[in-house]
Amino acid sequence: MYQEALAATAQRIAPFLHRTPVLTSRLLNQIAGAELYFKCENLQRMGAFKMRGAVNAVLQLSEEQKTRGVVTHSSGNFAQALALAAQSIGVQAYIVMPENAPQVKKDAVRGYGGQIIECSSEPMAREEVAAQVEKEKGAYFIHPSNDLEVILGQGTAALELLQDHPNLEHIFTPVGGGGLIAGTALAAHSFGQNCTVIGGEPFAADDAYRSLQSGQIEANTSTNTMADGLRTQLGDINFPIIQKHVAQIIRVEEAEIMAALRLIWERMKQVVEPSSAVALAALLRNKEEFAGRRIGIILSGGNVDLSKLPF
Amino acid sequence: MYQEALAATAQRIAPFLHRTPVLTSRLLNQIAGAELYFKCENLQRMGAFKMRGAVNAVLQLSEEQKTRGVVTHSSGNFAQALALAAQSIGVQAYIVMPENAPQVKKDAVRGYGGQIIECSSEPMAREEVAAQVEKEKGAYFIHPSNDLEVILGQGTAALELLQDHPNLEHIFTPVGGGGLIAGTALAAHSFGQNCTVIGGEPFAADDAYRSLQSGQIEANTSTNTMADGLRTQLGDINFPIIQKHVAQIIRVEEAEIMAALRLIWERMKQVVEPSSAVALAALLRNKEEFAGRRIGIILSGGNVDLSKLPF
Repeated sequence: MYQEALAATAQRIAPFLHRTPVLTSRLLNQIAGAELYFKCENLQRMGAFKMRGAVNAVLQLSEEQKTRGVVTHSSGNFAQALALAAQSIGVQAYIVMPENAPQVKKDAVRGYGGQIIECSSEPMAREEVAAQVEKEKGAYFIHPSNDLEVILGQGTAALELLQDHPNLEHIFTPVGGGGLIAGTALAAHSFGQNCTVIGGEPFAADDAYRSLQSGQIEANTSTNTMADGLRTQLGDINFPIIQKHVAQIIRVEEAEIMAALRLIWERMKQVVEPSSAVALAALLRNKEEFAGRRIGIILSGGNVDLSKLPF
Repeated sequence: MYQEALAATAQRIAPFLHRTPVLTSRLLNQIAGAELYFKCENLQRMGAFKMRGAVNAVLQLSEEQKTRGVVTHSSGNFAQALALAAQSIGVQAYIVMPENAPQVKKDAVRGYGGQIIECSSEPMAREEVAAQVEKEKGAYFIHPSNDLEVILGQGTAALELLQDHPNLEHIFTPVGGGGLIAGTALAAHSFGQNCTVIGGEPFAADDAYRSLQSGQIEANTSTNTMADGLRTQLGDINFPIIQKHVAQIIRVEEAEIMAALRLIWERMKQVVEPSSAVALAALLRNKEEFAGRRIGIILSGGNVDLSKLPF
């Protein structure tokens, strides 16, 4: 049922995005014992897949909504994505960020024309401040992952990957707030040939794994993972999609994330975030199960602070 | 006169190599004030353009020569390139390396099936030991940069770049031993439309710049540069080609190499060696001269030790 919506989304957002390349590596194929196709969203505009969903959400606004601007809360890639998406379309973006967010991230948002509204780092503070901006400015709130237009946008990465390689048997993505994996699942269901979607998640932030087990959205009990993009939890819009269309979630240890990250940097020569390595780590952890298969892996983003690398 | 030789080389080596992608970046175009096309030899097999020349040189041997093996001296990418090229073609490679070469490089050569012959780190020691291997084993000596078959192989990167973007006005490469820039110059002369070739070289290892000034091969007076692949000097086979076909060599400071390296990592998300950043650094140093032009840049390689990054 999402086939038309996804196709329309892909067409709508294309002028604002890169069609990212798909890379392969003989050596990683050998290590995995499978045929791997890496969709390089680290080479997407702004450095991550988040740009897709942000562009789609902004483009779906009415002209009147556009004049009043958009607002989100994020200290991660979605903050930059919404700022750049809005700037590209000529809309003002208000980004609610904790006052203790890294200066480099604040600078990046401002560099893309976003107006930062600071909030305290208390839990719930950012939701409250975002609601206030929504009310005062009349700005339209766009959630980083729990928004159908965002989810459809994120799904276009898998749609492109399946256009390039129609016979993939599985697609692996990392699982954070759930937008990417939900969009990927819709795309695989709509455009794949029995292509199943599998999530990788750190043991240290395994809310999605536990949510699928219990049948309701569970919170993270810890977020102590190097995959800092995956510390968020699922939402009520993406969770039902994930329940229905995601085959399994594989949890990985921090050492496995580190080893996968090193392989992607050293062997594929791609600068990716630790969060991006979680999908490959999940595959390598269970590689016997996927031996000989044709597998897509979404490298979700490449925004790292070179002065704080984990190596 | 090299058009046919280059075309034949490209065809000969293709089965053993990747056709590497060409990446672009709006942001780097803005910074440079020009239209840049990056040929990603960091994504070549073995992680550097050196694989091209090594494969070509090994393929040109007679069957009888192949049975006796090949030998080179290198502590850099050519050591690994010749080992992997020889292994791929079923030939034994003997690699002369200084005994104090990094363990990680020795391991890589052995991983590709190369047999390491250690020499002292004295000047000339490696030439002497290589000559000895040549004599004792009957192995065929292949110089890392001063060999016409190697030069033709390296030139195929620019040939592919010009096939993809025929109207480039300039191609920038780093200058080390001279093999890459000589091959690039032959390719640009044979396949370009008035495409000139420009070298980037560290001030701290500026033998090629001074050689072009004096009209004879000059030695480096220092090699204290982070661009460790560029510490070697020109040879009598590549120098005349460089004299005839290279438009200019632009020298850069270490801080400029570092800044260009950071741009490539942060903005293009590509893991490249410091040597690779020297070409972009040279362009950025003289960017007024190249404003608005269509420019190819060869990202020469991506083999870095993640535990020793300069950031």
